[in-house]
Amino acid sequence: MGVGGLSLAAVPLLPIEDRVAYATQNVSRASKPSDLKITDLRIAVLEGVPFTSPIVRISTNQGITGWGEVRDDADPRFALMLKSRILGENPCNVEMLFKRIKQFGGQGRQGGGVSGVEMALWDLAGKAFGVPVYQLLGGQYRNQVRVYTDATESEDPEEYAARMKARVDAGVTFLKMDLGLELISKIEGTVVGGGLWGDDLGQYNGDPGSYGMTEHAFTQVQITDKGLDEMAKYIEAVRGAIGYEIPMGMDHTGHFGVDTAIRLANRFERYNLAYLEDLVPWFYHDDWRQITENTNVPTMTGEDIFGFEAFKEIIDQGLVELIHPDPATAGGILETKRIADYAQMHSIATMLHYAGSPIGAIASAHIAAATEGFQALEYHSFEVEGWDTLVDGMEKPLMKNGFYTLTDRPGLGVDLNEDAAKQFLKEGTQLFPKSDEWNEKDSWDRIWS
Amino acid sequence: MGVGGLSLAAVPLLPIEDRVAYATQNVSRASKPSDLKITDLRIAVLEGVPFTSPIVRISTNQGITGWGEVRDDADPRFALMLKSRILGENPCNVEMLFKRIKQFGGQGRQGGGVSGVEMALWDLAGKAFGVPVYQLLGGQYRNQVRVYTDATESEDPEEYAARMKARVDAGVTFLKMDLGLELISKIEGTVVGGGLWGDDLGQYNGDPGSYGMTEHAFTQVQITDKGLDEMAKYIEAVRGAIGYEIPMGMDHTGHFGVDTAIRLANRFERYNLAYLEDLVPWFYHDDWRQITENTNVPTMTGEDIFGFEAFKEIIDQGLVELIHPDPATAGGILETKRIADYAQMHSIATMLHYAGSPIGAIASAHIAAATEGFQALEYHSFEVEGWDTLVDGMEKPLMKNGFYTLTDRPGLGVDLNEDAAKQFLKEGTQLFPKSDEWNEKDSWDRIWS
Repeated sequence: MGVGGLSLAAVPLLPIEDRVAYATQNVSRASKPSDLKITDLRIAVLEGVPFTSPIVRISTNQGITGWGEVRDDADPRFALMLKSRILGENPCNVEMLFKRIKQFGGQGRQGGGVSGVEMALWDLAGKAFGVPVYQLLGGQYRNQVRVYTDATESEDPEEYAARMKARVDAGVTFLKMDLGLELISKIEGTVVGGGLWGDDLGQYNGDPGSYGMTEHAFTQVQITDKGLDEMAKYIEAVRGAIGYEIPMGMDHTGHFGVDTAIRLANRFERYNLAYLEDLVPWFYHDDWRQITENTNVPTMTGEDIFGFEAFKEIIDQGLVELIHPDPATAGGILETKRIADYAQMHSIATMLHYAGSPIGAIASAHIAAATEGFQALEYHSFEVEGWDTLVDGMEKPLMKNGFYTLTDRPGLGVDLNEDAAKQFLKEGTQLFPKSDEWNEKDSWDRIWS
Repeated sequence: MGVGGLSLAAVPLLPIEDRVAYATQNVSRASKPSDLKITDLRIAVLEGVPFTSPIVRISTNQGITGWGEVRDDADPRFALMLKSRILGENPCNVEMLFKRIKQFGGQGRQGGGVSGVEMALWDLAGKAFGVPVYQLLGGQYRNQVRVYTDATESEDPEEYAARMKARVDAGVTFLKMDLGLELISKIEGTVVGGGLWGDDLGQYNGDPGSYGMTEHAFTQVQITDKGLDEMAKYIEAVRGAIGYEIPMGMDHTGHFGVDTAIRLANRFERYNLAYLEDLVPWFYHDDWRQITENTNVPTMTGEDIFGFEAFKEIIDQGLVELIHPDPATAGGILETKRIADYAQMHSIATMLHYAGSPIGAIASAHIAAATEGFQALEYHSFEVEGWDTLVDGMEKPLMKNGFYTLTDRPGLGVDLNEDAAKQFLKEGTQLFPKSDEWNEKDSWDRIWS
């Protein structure tokens, strides 16, 4: 800029251009933001991070690149559909572009396209102005972002307890315990109605009509007192190993109706769980009201919910005591912050669900840093070798002693390491292949008349 | 079947197989329904019918083909996304498959994929069992389905009146009149705030930030008393030509706020309009309540709404006096019937919006035939030469003296004429090209945990 070495006293004597240059000499700008334009959007699909994660790469006319991440196990086309709506636009207009593409977000994985693109827009806006994303959100409540984590279930309570204890030993300060009824259902007298499902009570069976795909009120499955006692043995083993001082939530108990959910909560309340998660589908409001009003364990839902509006209905009615948006489904960075801020106004705390690559993890950490009601962000990568190599720009390990630590670097502060990404590339796919077939908008996007 | 000529008296003496054959000898079946499987889904995009309409073609393992239609001006990929969810399934399980794909429907054009596929499933179910779709819906309330139609606006009131009169002369028994404020806004003293939009008050301008894309409460446009009088001159000319006996609704008045909408309704109530349509966006419930409660002209909305749930909120609150689903957005045949039936329980009548090819038009006519609360179905093809040639299976003209007349033919009762379709094929596209890239499901479809 040519005036970098000037002393303050000399500045008033300079022409206006030089005075501006002096005043902004410490501003690090990778580009001229007002002329920035989106020139491309491409996707690379990574596997085993721990699940399948489509990574969004948005290119610009000024050589800066924005990174985002579609929800794990979502179709990359949910993001590609948006390309024609943002090509040629200035990515710094994040909120305006988000409003334009929001109509293409749906519940569950379908929220992933809008969310991943929004993250990449924030990354670009931050890079263009030389500012970290958390700063564009209003600044930090915290620089260190607490993570929570679970461990793989074991049929042996002591082994399960040892796995959870290993998390604590690794420095994690907030835990979640999965405890599915399938762990105990083979013990006689523990579960009613398993036979209706051929005794296959797998919660992750995606076949239509399976137990895994059947909503809770429709399974006719109940857990007996004996079954609850058998499940409790696992919790007691874990609490025995980790103590009662550390917060620990619980998830994936199974698909059973409201009454069994309440009986389970009552039986487990003595273990001071941080929350019971997704006891029933999030959209059955009356079920949630009944559970929350009749139990003494905090309730939580949200990882499948897209958009402020759907969260608002739950928050307004106080149906749960914590919400659990996944930023890669909920609508990205700003929408998730808005949801959490609105929840806070209703005495509802926010945990963040997350199970993808470091791109989306760090994007989520920016939300966490800038959101007062935030509690802890899910870390799902203890067993993913090479997870840290997927990004450059932050000290490794990315997660240390139970926290991510954000930097002053612009945007998300991390960039995808494309060499590392190749190691995780989904079989039969290319790294960021051309996406020209998505360049043209082919629909009338006004959803009102 | 070999027993076709048997007399009734001989039947009890026959083996059971022959008795079954006798009992079903008059049932016309194109296939063995229980073994029917979907083998392909392809799209052809037609232009100028009157707008752009993606036609759905679902093929099966028994040589029968199902036809459906995506909402006009919608992206054909909204339907292609569903292919992997229905391949190999029995199309007769219409409701089950609809539930499976419903999550991919969105508001506006995004409801089109689910809707078009659902229509094609009904067509197949009807063909497989040799039964018309209206019969599978519970049978007819009417065999003749009343249409309503509009005419192209003219700046000359007398010319406009002549065009509307020509519709009546053609036998149409229910009319709609478009009357946009842009017709009179160039007259001094008629419109407040046009200058905020560079005097471009075009309602169909799709540019973000244009008047056309700005929701009503945010335009700061009002119509003056003089402006309302100028608009009224058009209505008076039309009523002068067609008389007061024929029902006539009104649409596309412009984008202005609730108060101007109420003033307009009050000024026009003397013309006994059948309804005022889409005065504000359908999702602003408080605005609609205010208009409906404070005016004496029936109110109507719905052409952009997908799914029972969104209609239910409007119906439960009595926000409008008529609903106006477009079956190619609302969710197809059965969902639209359910919406209309639910509306009827709340004293709300159903008009059907439609602006596509004869495939979707006749699919809509089946709903109309089988739904008590139905009033009239939009006919948008007076000026589309060759529109009738697009289907075989019904007497031409398809619409005669203001009505469609349904037949006893199975399914929709019409099949696409592919030669005629070629005449309307969208430039640069093929007729039903391969769609193998949509064969694989690439997302976790459970929207709850």
